[in-house]
Amino acid sequence: MRVVDLIRKKRDSQELTREEIAFLIDGYTRNEIPDYQISAWLMAVWLRGMTRAELTGLTETMLHSGEILDWSNIPGKKVDKHSTGGVGDKTSLVIAPIVAAAGLLVPMISGRGLGHSGGTLDKLESIPGFNVSLSLPDFRRVLRQCGLALIGQTAEIAPADKKIYSLRDVTSTVDSPNLICASIMSKKLAEGISALVLDVKTGSGAFMKKEEDAVHLAELMVETGQRMGKKVVALITDMNQPLGETAGNSLEVIECIEVLSGRGPGDLRELCLELSAWMLYLGERSSSVDEGKSLAAEMIASGRAKEKFREVIRLQGGDSSVVDDPSKLPRAKSTCQVKSPAGGFIAAIQCENLGIACNVLGGGRETKEDTIDPAVGLSFHKKIGDPVEKDEPLVTIHYDAKTRLSEARELVQRSYSIAPERPGEKSKLIKKIIGGPDGRSWGN
Amino acid sequence: MRVVDLIRKKRDSQELTREEIAFLIDGYTRNEIPDYQISAWLMAVWLRGMTRAELTGLTETMLHSGEILDWSNIPGKKVDKHSTGGVGDKTSLVIAPIVAAAGLLVPMISGRGLGHSGGTLDKLESIPGFNVSLSLPDFRRVLRQCGLALIGQTAEIAPADKKIYSLRDVTSTVDSPNLICASIMSKKLAEGISALVLDVKTGSGAFMKKEEDAVHLAELMVETGQRMGKKVVALITDMNQPLGETAGNSLEVIECIEVLSGRGPGDLRELCLELSAWMLYLGERSSSVDEGKSLAAEMIASGRAKEKFREVIRLQGGDSSVVDDPSKLPRAKSTCQVKSPAGGFIAAIQCENLGIACNVLGGGRETKEDTIDPAVGLSFHKKIGDPVEKDEPLVTIHYDAKTRLSEARELVQRSYSIAPERPGEKSKLIKKIIGGPDGRSWGN
Repeated sequence: MRVVDLIRKKRDSQELTREEIAFLIDGYTRNEIPDYQISAWLMAVWLRGMTRAELTGLTETMLHSGEILDWSNIPGKKVDKHSTGGVGDKTSLVIAPIVAAAGLLVPMISGRGLGHSGGTLDKLESIPGFNVSLSLPDFRRVLRQCGLALIGQTAEIAPADKKIYSLRDVTSTVDSPNLICASIMSKKLAEGISALVLDVKTGSGAFMKKEEDAVHLAELMVETGQRMGKKVVALITDMNQPLGETAGNSLEVIECIEVLSGRGPGDLRELCLELSAWMLYLGERSSSVDEGKSLAAEMIASGRAKEKFREVIRLQGGDSSVVDDPSKLPRAKSTCQVKSPAGGFIAAIQCENLGIACNVLGGGRETKEDTIDPAVGLSFHKKIGDPVEKDEPLVTIHYDAKTRLSEARELVQRSYSIAPERPGEKSKLIKKIIGGPDGRSWGN
Repeated sequence: MRVVDLIRKKRDSQELTREEIAFLIDGYTRNEIPDYQISAWLMAVWLRGMTRAELTGLTETMLHSGEILDWSNIPGKKVDKHSTGGVGDKTSLVIAPIVAAAGLLVPMISGRGLGHSGGTLDKLESIPGFNVSLSLPDFRRVLRQCGLALIGQTAEIAPADKKIYSLRDVTSTVDSPNLICASIMSKKLAEGISALVLDVKTGSGAFMKKEEDAVHLAELMVETGQRMGKKVVALITDMNQPLGETAGNSLEVIECIEVLSGRGPGDLRELCLELSAWMLYLGERSSSVDEGKSLAAEMIASGRAKEKFREVIRLQGGDSSVVDDPSKLPRAKSTCQVKSPAGGFIAAIQCENLGIACNVLGGGRETKEDTIDPAVGLSFHKKIGDPVEKDEPLVTIHYDAKTRLSEARELVQRSYSIAPERPGEKSKLIKKIIGGPDGRSWGN
């Protein structure tokens, strides 16, 4: 087998066998195939696509490039959720405690902020002392003790993905549905879970701006997971405006504590319940999604989910008293407001800009080396369709340094479109469900 | 400017500016941009193509990556010919002496055998002592003294092409018309010539099997050369059978001496006269192609072209007495014949196989490190359409070692199709002329 022939095959739209894909990926992971051949192949994949069989082969090879966590000596179903990312997307911190409180296990491996979107690890690290870099034995210990554990990717998990992702990043081959699917699914299935709920965002604040692209990616991931014998479902959810009422690391932790306390914004609560319900259903803790939703609501109402959150914070070295006194979380020195330039209704929000504004304030990274200010961020006072008066606050900016405040303020200002009339159709938070029980069967 | 953005632009079929192309190519040549980014870009170019403006920008950038030879202190028009390569394609050794004898200058930089095709440098090196690795000052001295000089690519000429070509070779991005055009034209125009005749081969022994592909490449090269202010014309010529009656390095040199002596095979003689005629016409030595053809024929008849060949051999360190006594050239120890399995007519020849058979005998390289046996090769006794009797010799194999003789013999045997009826249409040697004076104008 010669690498150059396999590159040509893909270039010429021919299907690669599973062995051929494994030859490329394994050789690359072992540093036997150079970057420049894999980058040519990745570009050919970007432009020519992949068949479903190729995609499954790629995902499986990447999955098996590292360790697949084995929980056989910890009884109980292991489930997880993955979101493709957006602005104010903070559901993991609510969902994982809910599902663990209901008796399933959630061995969650998360990422950091990427581009304009926030990351679960960055949010968790705004909790004083919280350690997301547990060793695998410690990860196992925490999971066994409290039913959930929240860490970042380790060197043992899907090393092929780590190497390929770095290469995609510098060769304009990131936004390929096939490569995104293989990257996400190889990492998530390395968690050793039996079921996975995908939250695929679409809209102005998502990576997939168009709903059809989100649906396509969701279908690829659901089918790939199912081909690999896992229960997988994808919710296509709205990201045309921030989820909840805040973006920024400690601000979002506070909002999650609110939801876990039975309060918090309606959209965030609704999505958390829906995602939890699917996890409980796929994890066979409930016999229907509706029953799962009731169970999830009960975990909040009873305070058991909140208790799980305290527990995991404590077990991972954090100060769990923040759950009861959120003022202990980092807080920005100053605030200022962006006001509506006119009266009317919120017609549209350029949501990606709001994520970039957070980064500009120091709440996200612009280069890999940047350190994050956990306290800064935005509070959103208006949703699409809401009435607004001239000079009424749209957004509160939480900032520490004035250096780039005006840049952030301008980004926020530009993000809101005000119209004299109320916009016609309200966009649904959950737009579609891909791979539900009415669809295809779920392997074993 | 960021490399990753330029890769994406090409990936998304957007046109790159001249500055953007120069940024990529210059950065790569200076080792500031890594292989893996350029290989992704090359694959995007392979799959998305280039506009004519992009192609001109690429060719010019590659041309200017190194030295452009300056002959301003050697009076006279400088012209050259380039062939895309085939089996038995030996015209350079005849044409360069003819054109130089007629008073133009031919600073010819040639290549080695590539794949199944032979190379001018390999043929020249079969002449004892002939040195194709002259320094640029020696190249200049030989050109000034005898009007022609024949060398290989130097480190000073189009270094960008050298680097890019090596990368294309290992990333399945060789056979892109745009990349082929830029590679050929940047090297040829670095010769500091004002006119170039291209011999674009098509057929079973050419790289472009289909005439339409050859025409497309020819159009790209002619237009690119013209955009750069050069006189360029391309002849689309037949390579469905070997040119002349031999393939193999010293065998081809002998055949060239035959043509320079007023003998030799008709097809080879015809093509040499036609190509010389165009060079003389574009170099303003004749006022028409027909007049150029008469002049070329006269250079042969008068012995002046042959004298030029003696002269250049001598000036480049070779034994020029081979011109008068070709038996001094390397000769294979043994010969054997491949005979016709049936009576009838030669219907078709799988010409590429004949080139591969030469390599198998040791006459060409299978890897870059292989050394060549200059003596081995094939003599062809039948052209397409010729009648043949059962057991009449089709090909004489000239070999030194028996090691892979049977493999070569089988390749030759398989290459000839014999039919009971004479094939209908005789394919023309010169199929088309692209960019002639009736076509587009020639810049300045």
